Amino acid sequence: MTLRGPRVSRRGLLGGAAGLGLAGVAGAGLAGCASPAPGAQTVPFYGEHQAGVSTDVQDRLAFAAFDVTSADRSDLIGMLRTWTAAAEAMTRGVRVPGESDAQQVPPADTGEAIGLPPSELTVTIGFGPKLFDQRFGLAPHKPPQFTDLPDLPGAILDPTRTGGDIGIQACANDPAVAFHAVRNLARLGKGTAVTRWTQLGFGRTSSTGTNQQTERNLMGFKDGTRNIKSNDGQALDEFVWVGDEAGQRWMKGGSYLVARRIRMFVEAWDRDVLSDQESVFGREKYTGAPLTGKDEFDTPDFAARGPDGELVIPERAHVRLAAFENNRGLRILRRGYSFTDGIDPETSDLDAGLFFISYQRDPMQFITLQRSLGSRDRLNEYVRHVGSAVFACPTGVPDATHYWGQPLFEA
Amino acid sequence: MTLRGPRVSRRGLLGGAAGLGLAGVAGAGLAGCASPAPGAQTVPFYGEHQAGVSTDVQDRLAFAAFDVTSADRSDLIGMLRTWTAAAEAMTRGVRVPGESDAQQVPPADTGEAIGLPPSELTVTIGFGPKLFDQRFGLAPHKPPQFTDLPDLPGAILDPTRTGGDIGIQACANDPAVAFHAVRNLARLGKGTAVTRWTQLGFGRTSSTGTNQQTERNLMGFKDGTRNIKSNDGQALDEFVWVGDEAGQRWMKGGSYLVARRIRMFVEAWDRDVLSDQESVFGREKYTGAPLTGKDEFDTPDFAARGPDGELVIPERAHVRLAAFENNRGLRILRRGYSFTDGIDPETSDLDAGLFFISYQRDPMQFITLQRSLGSRDRLNEYVRHVGSAVFACPTGVPDATHYWGQPLFEA
Repeated sequence: MTLRGPRVSRRGLLGGAAGLGLAGVAGAGLAGCASPAPGAQTVPFYGEHQAGVSTDVQDRLAFAAFDVTSADRSDLIGMLRTWTAAAEAMTRGVRVPGESDAQQVPPADTGEAIGLPPSELTVTIGFGPKLFDQRFGLAPHKPPQFTDLPDLPGAILDPTRTGGDIGIQACANDPAVAFHAVRNLARLGKGTAVTRWTQLGFGRTSSTGTNQQTERNLMGFKDGTRNIKSNDGQALDEFVWVGDEAGQRWMKGGSYLVARRIRMFVEAWDRDVLSDQESVFGREKYTGAPLTGKDEFDTPDFAARGPDGELVIPERAHVRLAAFENNRGLRILRRGYSFTDGIDPETSDLDAGLFFISYQRDPMQFITLQRSLGSRDRLNEYVRHVGSAVFACPTGVPDATHYWGQPLFEA
Repeated sequence: MTLRGPRVSRRGLLGGAAGLGLAGVAGAGLAGCASPAPGAQTVPFYGEHQAGVSTDVQDRLAFAAFDVTSADRSDLIGMLRTWTAAAEAMTRGVRVPGESDAQQVPPADTGEAIGLPPSELTVTIGFGPKLFDQRFGLAPHKPPQFTDLPDLPGAILDPTRTGGDIGIQACANDPAVAFHAVRNLARLGKGTAVTRWTQLGFGRTSSTGTNQQTERNLMGFKDGTRNIKSNDGQALDEFVWVGDEAGQRWMKGGSYLVARRIRMFVEAWDRDVLSDQESVFGREKYTGAPLTGKDEFDTPDFAARGPDGELVIPERAHVRLAAFENNRGLRILRRGYSFTDGIDPETSDLDAGLFFISYQRDPMQFITLQRSLGSRDRLNEYVRHVGSAVFACPTGVPDATHYWGQPLFEA
């Protein structure tokens, strides 16, 4: 789904080439060799959909949730205009627009990413349910089903890692590029919005690309195998992109982002025997194959029974409970990352796990699946949801004359 | 300095090729094309020196400090034996030795790095001053100058990010590989040692390789330009590797690691004008050149004065105060990483900065430089040292019959 531009380095553009068409550079110097350095490419910012949803999942994540501190609608719109231009520039690998070379002003860009390639950076915005309160006159445009997520089984939420008026997902193959994006938006938002929480993800656990390997989660398992792929337009339209639903034209082509900070009790998990770990997931650990198959991508046979008459994929195995076959066909697009944030001071255990992100056409898709998993999934012995947020990610920005969420403010 | 083996994937070795010689694979499939995927290679674990000191700096860091909870010397030695074998296997990209395929035992390896290439992983160990107390009979072998770092200007230390009996530095080009190493050592140490603190570094800020670019720190500046290089054997011998100093034969070929968690007040920094930022560092922001030069690698001219008669590189500029020319020739090998750990709950500012690591033949080298910087460096307005540790990293492990620090325990 994602079209890629040629490799363009921030450094190369310092010389003033930013305004030139870039198409002429494509492929130069690469003839005869396999492919350009992975991650050097540019993902276009403008389009029907925001980038960063169906885009092939990049390796690293920086996520930030913001609270809007100004109650002035024009401040909010002004920030979104500034953010849009900055995000678009950063995805091309050039500096945040504004004065950067004048000696007597603070540089417009914080500078730490100068010289780094675009690294497939995508910056994706979403609006939290609270943004639609009385402050900005947005209440009439709030889709009726768009509220904070209900209490769900398996969750003990930390309010300092939950919620937010605005969410920013920055993904890139270089973590410095992803962090730079979030940091610069936070800086540009000063006076209008304050950072509520942030999360770094050091390794992707899902893939959406058709030739991307599935990476393992911190339990050592492949759990993103049956994800929606970026070339599966039908599934994207059915399960990910908002269509012509009544009352949310500003969301057409957008999607709902659910984020859950899922702490894994890795110390307990690591004491479990291999056979039990495999029956918790319903997959072989090393090959990633379902317990009824030989290869990672074999379709699980949920009806298969062993010589003892028992189900080969146990009744409460994660792969069974999460499968669309067992959820009336319901699917979501997963885009989660492994995280670690040091030591839990209460237990001296690692504070580590999965920063789960999913995109869906309606938050109810996630809620339904999580209710199915939350009450029965054997994985629950080893995980706890400790942070949560939901954001409505509006339609894509068509070109440089528009800003993020403009159709909402002009609705 | 660092010899590299061929690309070897964890996945490739699962089939049982681990015991075969690997030299035959070298270069296969790469003929005609530039170079293998960066970061896929293996850095040898065994050698005169520990890897991870003069090794070309990898992109990502996972660091952990441990407290030894057992007071039994044989437990400590047993853990070091286990750790050595595990670290050596992980640097080859194979699983932690032990039972991993048996169904009725917990896997020996936590598994999340299976399928990832070695990614130039190095695992480096150091012993803290406290390890030489009465517990393990090591007091007679403590080098006289090896104590906790004294109070230094610019530091307000958090005890939960300071000290430790043992330090483990894991560096790799894939953060998941670095984290996997630290996590598995923590797990293998259970019952003998407990993790005291950890730190992830997402981007290197120094280089030691002769053809490595200098990466920028979170202030947007290049500050590792004049580092000791991995091919400068004379400087390494003079400033980094312990030689025949009396009373520390177990440290011969080793080095002292200083770690400082340096919080940067990036919000205040970002409000400073470009010219002032440049005079704080004594370098141009965009080119990285000293204010007396045109190119990053030009030698600073500390005597040069402008038309106004003022020093071009100001008296309190960081590059001047840190320069060996102004510190009686004193040098250290820097190996620091940028970090961010979310939001400071007190200020809502980003908790971000530099996890400074340096290696030196004697901790006094760092202390001397930091005293010089700490009292006068203009950078101090924007940084604070909030964590600190010093570790004695013993001589290298020659082969599989030895373990980390063995000469200390047999001294």
